[in-house]
Amino acid sequence: MANRPVTIKDIAEKLSISVSTVSRALKNNPEISLTTREAVQKLAKELKYQPNPLAVALKTQKSNTIGVVVPQIVSSFYATVVKGIEQIADEHNYQVFVSSSNERIEKEEKNVNGFLNMRMDGIILSLTRATTTYDHIHKIQDMGVPMVLFDRTSKELEVSKVVADDAAAAHTAVTHLINGGAKRVAFMTGPEFMLFGTNRLRGYKKALEDKNIPLDETLISRCDFTVEDAKSLALDLLSRVNRPDAIFAINDDMAIGAIAAAKELGLKIPNDLAVVGFSNSRRSRYMEPSVSTMDQNPKEVGREAARLLFEQMEKTPDAKAIKEVVVHADLIVRTSSDK
Amino acid sequence: MANRPVTIKDIAEKLSISVSTVSRALKNNPEISLTTREAVQKLAKELKYQPNPLAVALKTQKSNTIGVVVPQIVSSFYATVVKGIEQIADEHNYQVFVSSSNERIEKEEKNVNGFLNMRMDGIILSLTRATTTYDHIHKIQDMGVPMVLFDRTSKELEVSKVVADDAAAAHTAVTHLINGGAKRVAFMTGPEFMLFGTNRLRGYKKALEDKNIPLDETLISRCDFTVEDAKSLALDLLSRVNRPDAIFAINDDMAIGAIAAAKELGLKIPNDLAVVGFSNSRRSRYMEPSVSTMDQNPKEVGREAARLLFEQMEKTPDAKAIKEVVVHADLIVRTSSDK
Repeated sequence: MANRPVTIKDIAEKLSISVSTVSRALKNNPEISLTTREAVQKLAKELKYQPNPLAVALKTQKSNTIGVVVPQIVSSFYATVVKGIEQIADEHNYQVFVSSSNERIEKEEKNVNGFLNMRMDGIILSLTRATTTYDHIHKIQDMGVPMVLFDRTSKELEVSKVVADDAAAAHTAVTHLINGGAKRVAFMTGPEFMLFGTNRLRGYKKALEDKNIPLDETLISRCDFTVEDAKSLALDLLSRVNRPDAIFAINDDMAIGAIAAAKELGLKIPNDLAVVGFSNSRRSRYMEPSVSTMDQNPKEVGREAARLLFEQMEKTPDAKAIKEVVVHADLIVRTSSDK
Repeated sequence: MANRPVTIKDIAEKLSISVSTVSRALKNNPEISLTTREAVQKLAKELKYQPNPLAVALKTQKSNTIGVVVPQIVSSFYATVVKGIEQIADEHNYQVFVSSSNERIEKEEKNVNGFLNMRMDGIILSLTRATTTYDHIHKIQDMGVPMVLFDRTSKELEVSKVVADDAAAAHTAVTHLINGGAKRVAFMTGPEFMLFGTNRLRGYKKALEDKNIPLDETLISRCDFTVEDAKSLALDLLSRVNRPDAIFAINDDMAIGAIAAAKELGLKIPNDLAVVGFSNSRRSRYMEPSVSTMDQNPKEVGREAARLLFEQMEKTPDAKAIKEVVVHADLIVRTSSDK
């Protein structure tokens, strides 16, 4: 700590409390217990803590701009989230600037630093798949810049978030397939380490359980998120003696691959095989047959993220420091599962 | 002019020469004739012209950032252009920040001002459909900030540009349909005022002419750029006694609408009706039948725009002040026209 100024994070670590608690304690916020406030303020004095001058400048000099970091701009999901953010920003007469991390943590860090240097009034961010260290996120907090995470968030971060309920969405999709008469619902998913995959698997299992269908682990299979990989995986699945009569795919591309495999094997959709995908990609609607899917309401995700950010920026009285908003996904039934 | 400082644009207007000529004359650039240089420098002195302090700051203080203004982020064309820009920017260790005008000129102006305030090193921009006044663009030039336009540009602006050759692309598409045996190629296009529509119409006419097919004006029809509108227009076209045997549609959605109409009327694709769309949208590949289309190479458009911008920013010796790069479109033959 010798060569750099003391930050809120240092105080938080020394006292084993959260950054946001320290931040609120320094502002003498009555939501924080008096004991904690006194401990924080005492330590801040001892360590000669000074609010970051950039942070102070940020507070006095509004730029009326919001910076958004997304993993990919070439993704209709993220692009539509941005559109939702823009709607709310327009209402407040704010501008939105977007940068893409291209799923690389070094770029995500650069994007964040760029936005801080450009004095953005607030930052909305969805993490890369690879983000597991959070110094750049803590820096935003240290500087007192309002921030909201969405979609790809982390449990390790005490920040306001807009999240999906992936387990509930998967439960809805699988229950719909079972209600349509499916006895053997396969789940086609991606690599094991991905949180949303784990959550959707949980929803899949719960839906089976709720309908008293025993879990058959051989019906859970993994591949990459592409049409081609999904097709060859589905060709294998559907060629088994005891083949599935329905497939829940973790994204629409996989569902499209599964349908292509079924066609190649002469199976009728949806009668021989019902299929539901995920995320309501543009093409899912126009395929033949059209693909049932879970719509994640990306515009609403963007709107909610922006609303949370403006609450923080405007410090509205009812704005709690940390909020989590869940945006539910809606089932869209199309030909691929409409029995 | 009483209350505002004199700009390069004022000097340009008084002398009836271009802003870039004035800018170069002030720098004593030998590409400009001595007479012009002297006239410009004399007038600048008389009018007490001072370089904009912000412009000077911009020149001395690099931010290693590029601002991009697109009409829509929710468009795979523009998103892919941004991806191309990012590739080149990455190589130069620059960051890219994107803002969307949402096809509104007031937002485009705000975006430009935002980027100028944030001290971007360069700006890449595609105009809204409605942009017909250019003060915000001239302001970028006045401040000496490097700039490149792409896709939606204007003849009134003396700026480096990356453009499509829409006439040549339409010529390629229509020639392909005629080579496949089509005798009556219809052209489904959008509102009359749009420049790219005019250019593609020119290519359509030229292709007919080159094949000695007389122009039948009743085969040129207009509707909105949606699947639904195109379908109802095509139902009308294909119900005529002397119906077309091929359709060249100005975008993929219109092609998809035309195919839906043909199916409804029991026509076989491509034998009864061959169809080519435009822009290689994601869904065009996955439709059934898959849709032939013109690919505009958006990533290359972005890369070329970024290359032109870096030439300006780095003032490489061979960098002429104003350059125009044409990125050609490629025909992608799929089922809808593959005879």
